[in-house]
Amino acid sequence: MNTDKLKQLDAADPLRHLQEAFDIPEDTIYLNGNSLGPLCRASRERINEVVNDQWRSDLIASWNKHDWIDLPLITGNKIAPLIGAREGQVVSCDSVSVNLFKLLSTALMLRPECEIILTLQDNFPTDLYIAEGLSRFLGDARLKVRSLDLEDLDLALESTPAIVMLTQVNFRDGSALDIEAITRKAQSNGSLVIWDLSHSVGVMPLEMDRWNVDFAVGCGYKYLNGGPGAPAFLYVAERHLPHSEQALQGWMGHKAPFEFRPEYDASEGIERFLSGTPPIISLAALDAALELFDGTDSTLLRKKSAALAETFLILKAQYPELDELQLVSPTDPELRGAQLCFSHEKAYWICQALVERRLFADFRNPDVLRLGFSPLFLSFSGLHDAVYLLARVMREKSYENHKFAKKDKVT
Amino acid sequence: MNTDKLKQLDAADPLRHLQEAFDIPEDTIYLNGNSLGPLCRASRERINEVVNDQWRSDLIASWNKHDWIDLPLITGNKIAPLIGAREGQVVSCDSVSVNLFKLLSTALMLRPECEIILTLQDNFPTDLYIAEGLSRFLGDARLKVRSLDLEDLDLALESTPAIVMLTQVNFRDGSALDIEAITRKAQSNGSLVIWDLSHSVGVMPLEMDRWNVDFAVGCGYKYLNGGPGAPAFLYVAERHLPHSEQALQGWMGHKAPFEFRPEYDASEGIERFLSGTPPIISLAALDAALELFDGTDSTLLRKKSAALAETFLILKAQYPELDELQLVSPTDPELRGAQLCFSHEKAYWICQALVERRLFADFRNPDVLRLGFSPLFLSFSGLHDAVYLLARVMREKSYENHKFAKKDKVT
Repeated sequence: MNTDKLKQLDAADPLRHLQEAFDIPEDTIYLNGNSLGPLCRASRERINEVVNDQWRSDLIASWNKHDWIDLPLITGNKIAPLIGAREGQVVSCDSVSVNLFKLLSTALMLRPECEIILTLQDNFPTDLYIAEGLSRFLGDARLKVRSLDLEDLDLALESTPAIVMLTQVNFRDGSALDIEAITRKAQSNGSLVIWDLSHSVGVMPLEMDRWNVDFAVGCGYKYLNGGPGAPAFLYVAERHLPHSEQALQGWMGHKAPFEFRPEYDASEGIERFLSGTPPIISLAALDAALELFDGTDSTLLRKKSAALAETFLILKAQYPELDELQLVSPTDPELRGAQLCFSHEKAYWICQALVERRLFADFRNPDVLRLGFSPLFLSFSGLHDAVYLLARVMREKSYENHKFAKKDKVT
Repeated sequence: MNTDKLKQLDAADPLRHLQEAFDIPEDTIYLNGNSLGPLCRASRERINEVVNDQWRSDLIASWNKHDWIDLPLITGNKIAPLIGAREGQVVSCDSVSVNLFKLLSTALMLRPECEIILTLQDNFPTDLYIAEGLSRFLGDARLKVRSLDLEDLDLALESTPAIVMLTQVNFRDGSALDIEAITRKAQSNGSLVIWDLSHSVGVMPLEMDRWNVDFAVGCGYKYLNGGPGAPAFLYVAERHLPHSEQALQGWMGHKAPFEFRPEYDASEGIERFLSGTPPIISLAALDAALELFDGTDSTLLRKKSAALAETFLILKAQYPELDELQLVSPTDPELRGAQLCFSHEKAYWICQALVERRLFADFRNPDVLRLGFSPLFLSFSGLHDAVYLLARVMREKSYENHKFAKKDKVT
């Protein structure tokens, strides 16, 4: 594949105009939007507005005047179409970890007879930690966490009803689960299902309502580009909402928080899943970034990110020196998310060498080099430079002459 | 008291130089720092830096390069001296509500025999909601919440050992509890005590370590001026830290979060109280605002805010039309925090009329007009205009000619 062909792909890309909405330094190839989305101009403008026009000038009055009070719901309603949810079922707040805890508590209150959280050993670690923490807190007699290998999941879904907690796209190898099929199977056995969409939202076509999902959480700072540590979101199916309670009930979830009544009276809507005061500046940055998705069909997002990844693989195959990077993601694009993962014993140092040359990727234990293909800001032409640079690093073994004294804390 | 005297007070104010650090519009008198602190220049600069130099340019590498990963602890260590804690006992994260939940879970795991949360009926509502939510989740047999009137507290502290959960300064009338005495009494009976310092930190001299407090939480966006919904903080006494677990254990509390191990292994430090990824932009704004407190003795903060409130009362007494505003806060400055609360049946509309004239105050049900005396950005001279304006509104009964169609959501 040559640069002409890549230019053709760019010319035919219906999302191409969105690249200009981002402010990515010129010397940078960013294949790490799966970890932290880059800055878009709308977020920068909104942050300025929130800080200088709202907080500075209108001070406390901004809660009404600039509708800070409704921002978790406003933002949630922008996420809703990306996950196939109607308005009023999604709210943006807290972190994935905290939201997962809330939903686990909700599920346990809806199904007091359930004594097991069923999950996968290779689920994203914070999901496992949260489940484990809840189990330690409640005691093993009340709640056990069963972390399975994928091949044992089917059988387990047929045994005792449980709270099933799964992540669609595996963070380490990019493989994707079939939400619809697993949800149906789990529910047919009386289980409730909580999906973590952190590595899916913004790149996969998701249909929470149509697939009859019970609950979901997801991340605001990966493919949604909401900024570092942007608030997460949670989804609750309409059918559960009226009877759903959650353990972390705080004043923002109250029907009338500013009446300061001593008794908790849950909001009738999805706001009952709010706890404390949301971090408005970070939330506003996410809200602004979501405007880029406005009117964009998620099948288009999926199609482009799959095409980017396939193009990357074709280009990679043109360089024999890249053969030692072995694909550990599924080869079938249908079976993976928007990332490609390659194994190499020097993956950590390769990643460092790439980042030093401003090709951003990341490393995951034990030996995985991870590349993300965000559909909003990447071009097909840019992949040419990415593969060329990667090939040079591998050919010159730049990673062996590294000057890195020790591993970074975050990789 | 005349303007010359006020100018003398300003000239003698050792904190006076800090007023320039804030960017408050000229037409504004801000007596609402107890609810949302105003913007300081350091926060604005830091937000710009985080957005444009860090997120934009260094992208994911900022977690190491700009030490985002340690920011909850760095910020916590800046709060520590304000509450009389040594380094490594305070971390900034999540909301007051979520942090309170964590500490309640910690206390219950440390004292499995405790079946009661003891609190006051007039505690800040979100504290009550969180306790109630936890009780609903665990079941009444495991955990009951007893919300008392203040006069019954002493006796209750002598009965069954409990988790005592109190807020130092009452949000509605500004009255302050004696942390040291209550903590001692509670502990002598085998209780653990969690203090909410939301309406104290930054204006009261606090001595968590010296007073032998077990746990505390506090707010980042009131007197600490961290910005709307800034992350909160929590304190854990050194003696509890090694055996403290918490229910909301997320990956940021892991000893080695980026090794992505399936088993949770708590950080040895206060970081074990972190859950998910922190909202970096909002957290950085708080971190920058805290620099204003650097090297400032909290007795100076207390002294100035008490002097501001006393001066306000003296000025108020010069206007007979202000007599109908009745002080509901304790008259003894030693017995209250940094706010003055007045009752008036039209308090809501008075507050609206004041804010319309850019004298910021707030309203609390049922009839309370609340004024906060933040020591960092207020001048004594400014109080002259505040009282003058208030007197005019009362004299002209501007609040009766209001154009406000309905009550705002937030007041």
